[in-house]
Amino acid sequence: MIGHVGTVTAVSTPPGKGGVAVIRVSGDDALAVAEKCFSPRDKKPLSAHAPRRAVYGDILLDGEIIDDGLLLFFPAPHSYTGEDVIELSCHGGPLLTGMVLEATLKAGAIPAPAGEFTRRAYLAGKLSLSDAEAIGLAIDAVTKDQVRLAASDSRDRLRDAVGDLHDRLLGLLSSLYAGIDYPDEDLSELSPDEIKAGIGSILADLSSLCDTYRTGRAISEGLPAVIAGKPNVGKSALFNRLLGEDAAIVTEIPGTTRDVIEYPLPVGRALLRLADTAGLRDTSDPVETIGVERARKKIGGAEVLLLVLDPSRPLEREDRELIDLARGFSGLAVLILNKSDLPAVWQKTDLPEGTPASFSVSAETGEGLDALRDYLSGALTDGTLSPGTDAIVAGARQAAALSAAREDLASCLDSLSRGVPIDAAASLAESALAALSEVDGRTVSGEIVDEIFSHFCVGK
Amino acid sequence: MIGHVGTVTAVSTPPGKGGVAVIRVSGDDALAVAEKCFSPRDKKPLSAHAPRRAVYGDILLDGEIIDDGLLLFFPAPHSYTGEDVIELSCHGGPLLTGMVLEATLKAGAIPAPAGEFTRRAYLAGKLSLSDAEAIGLAIDAVTKDQVRLAASDSRDRLRDAVGDLHDRLLGLLSSLYAGIDYPDEDLSELSPDEIKAGIGSILADLSSLCDTYRTGRAISEGLPAVIAGKPNVGKSALFNRLLGEDAAIVTEIPGTTRDVIEYPLPVGRALLRLADTAGLRDTSDPVETIGVERARKKIGGAEVLLLVLDPSRPLEREDRELIDLARGFSGLAVLILNKSDLPAVWQKTDLPEGTPASFSVSAETGEGLDALRDYLSGALTDGTLSPGTDAIVAGARQAAALSAAREDLASCLDSLSRGVPIDAAASLAESALAALSEVDGRTVSGEIVDEIFSHFCVGK
Repeated sequence: MIGHVGTVTAVSTPPGKGGVAVIRVSGDDALAVAEKCFSPRDKKPLSAHAPRRAVYGDILLDGEIIDDGLLLFFPAPHSYTGEDVIELSCHGGPLLTGMVLEATLKAGAIPAPAGEFTRRAYLAGKLSLSDAEAIGLAIDAVTKDQVRLAASDSRDRLRDAVGDLHDRLLGLLSSLYAGIDYPDEDLSELSPDEIKAGIGSILADLSSLCDTYRTGRAISEGLPAVIAGKPNVGKSALFNRLLGEDAAIVTEIPGTTRDVIEYPLPVGRALLRLADTAGLRDTSDPVETIGVERARKKIGGAEVLLLVLDPSRPLEREDRELIDLARGFSGLAVLILNKSDLPAVWQKTDLPEGTPASFSVSAETGEGLDALRDYLSGALTDGTLSPGTDAIVAGARQAAALSAAREDLASCLDSLSRGVPIDAAASLAESALAALSEVDGRTVSGEIVDEIFSHFCVGK
Repeated sequence: MIGHVGTVTAVSTPPGKGGVAVIRVSGDDALAVAEKCFSPRDKKPLSAHAPRRAVYGDILLDGEIIDDGLLLFFPAPHSYTGEDVIELSCHGGPLLTGMVLEATLKAGAIPAPAGEFTRRAYLAGKLSLSDAEAIGLAIDAVTKDQVRLAASDSRDRLRDAVGDLHDRLLGLLSSLYAGIDYPDEDLSELSPDEIKAGIGSILADLSSLCDTYRTGRAISEGLPAVIAGKPNVGKSALFNRLLGEDAAIVTEIPGTTRDVIEYPLPVGRALLRLADTAGLRDTSDPVETIGVERARKKIGGAEVLLLVLDPSRPLEREDRELIDLARGFSGLAVLILNKSDLPAVWQKTDLPEGTPASFSVSAETGEGLDALRDYLSGALTDGTLSPGTDAIVAGARQAAALSAAREDLASCLDSLSRGVPIDAAASLAESALAALSEVDGRTVSGEIVDEIFSHFCVGK
């Protein structure tokens, strides 16, 4: 783990122009830094003010007043990071904010790397790694369900669910150990069958929890998707119509692994991360040709395929080849029969057997889009799960820990059933218990911690 | 004046993604709004917490927790606006911030128009109009001198200087009135000559103060400027070199009156607002032709003309016509002899008599640019004036009020010298006194107030 020591400073508010900006300083010298660059208007020293109380004063750079603002002092350990923290509010001009940051640097603080405040909060035990990951999700959220999934209610539900499994397993372990230590004395509170039944019950609940990740991932991370189809079938129109009606915020998410631009397209609870392909943008170009080979390339790595067809024109060889591609698609494929506002020259019944679900829609009028959205949302998420109300696994790291626990527990149950020595079964149950402890991130490795915080913005 | 009533809310931090965002609510119902969308973790009602003290809790939208954050309550009148104010800090995700804003709206607040908080602060007498204008300058600042000019020290110096003139004039007025009321009794504490001398002294100091606006305007507002010259003389290279070395922040300031993009180019204390003209961008195009007519158009409205010439190539007819243009230019024209790193085929001495000051520079190496900057700064600002230390008039509204006062006072002095009835002179002095009172904006019209706040961003 990259170790950071000293008192760090950063602008915590977004870059740009606004009414107010906040500069945050954390570390042993936070108050000393504040005393050098902030002069309370009431002329009392900062230490004479009550903690956590807004103090009005002047902000100084090189002995010169550059702004007036508010200062809050949060003494350790009752602060975000668990260290001494000051938060300095100034007027939100970009240059001015930079000068206030400069003032804290000249007063002895060092620049905080991205995510440093939250990393310190984690290292001080103020936050679990799951909490830190949720903060990242909250900041990056483009759908309301992502915000809900990141909020404390959702995290509490998951923590409670995992804690419950952990406690139940711990209870059974003591019975297992009693059987190992005193095999002939029958000191175990539970019979072998009762132990097996108990582990079977934990395993069933753990499996259900693991399954929520399908929904959690569709909400939090989103699913890679592509729109395919011949030119002029209305791919762009469809995309714009779906985006215009659904998207909370239209932003460009730079592809992290595939070096392409992705558009977030919320569909019900799920978020589709629609790859920006040439086809998406160039449909107005009448000389564009789309080969099936090209479509094949596009959908590599996608988990959702939206194939757009135009029943107002006859099906051509290229359409049929694309339909074949959809039939063999490993993820979720949907056929979208666009231009339902025009007279059709072929019907759904003309499509070959075994074709994926198809929906008649009109990107022009919006007709049929609700049914399409409902289908996609239902196919991609579990509609009975609700962020904030139910325990939902939201992140890959948590899902991996839970999967490992499930695997260990399944092996443990299998061992008990096959009558192998009880200490081997106990060891597997121990391993499952350790994996459950990892879900909230209190026991994970420094590399994983570094990886998580590397995605944070500066100032968080 | 547009009247705004009710409790208003807005995001006060810049838009975009960051660690923290602040939503500000002001008005009679601010605390009631907070109580509906914020639930303290300690379960005590907000009213039971000390004012101005950070309270940790959950932020609620439609009864659902969407984030956790801090709340500060500033009861009237000890707040920014003079009304009850709450400031709610949440995690700085754009969608999340919008949802927290939505929560305050659903709790009964209405959206705050641009500049509404500062307008309310002004209307409540918490800020003078000069203070409000300074906040606008601080937020828009792209040079450190603009920040200094906006800071309280600068404002205090100007307030003190105007207050001093005001008090001196008020003192003399009583002597004038004594002369009117009891013309034969010689009750006046001062003789007519002493009054004249006193007014003359005030007028001299007032004139000096008025003159500082030349420097104040060059710092705060900036001066419209153009770079002219034939193709390939190095206009872009020069601009980039000057900008790269000097600019604190390179931003595009959308032209407010002329519908062109302007680049802020700091030169010493002064800020040049360089119009983005085709010539600036297209110098790499070898087939570009620049007519003198086109240059003439470009410099319409400019106050600074930077004419770039290339002494490594012979002077052509077009160069000579541009030099003539510079000689007749109404503002400050400078000839920049670029490419001093190349052998010259003509010298400064070859330029016609009466040509503006010229500087040999190399945009390539940076040679000579310091001298150019020093000259421009010296010609455009008064180097003896320092923001923060001296009283400097920074805004057009203040300058207009001071000019009006100067005019009235000059007429008053003239009247006294010509022996016109003393009550006419007293009336002019009264008028000057009223104009001085207007400088801090406590007595200006609602239209002017509206105009000033219309330039503010939402959330300020």
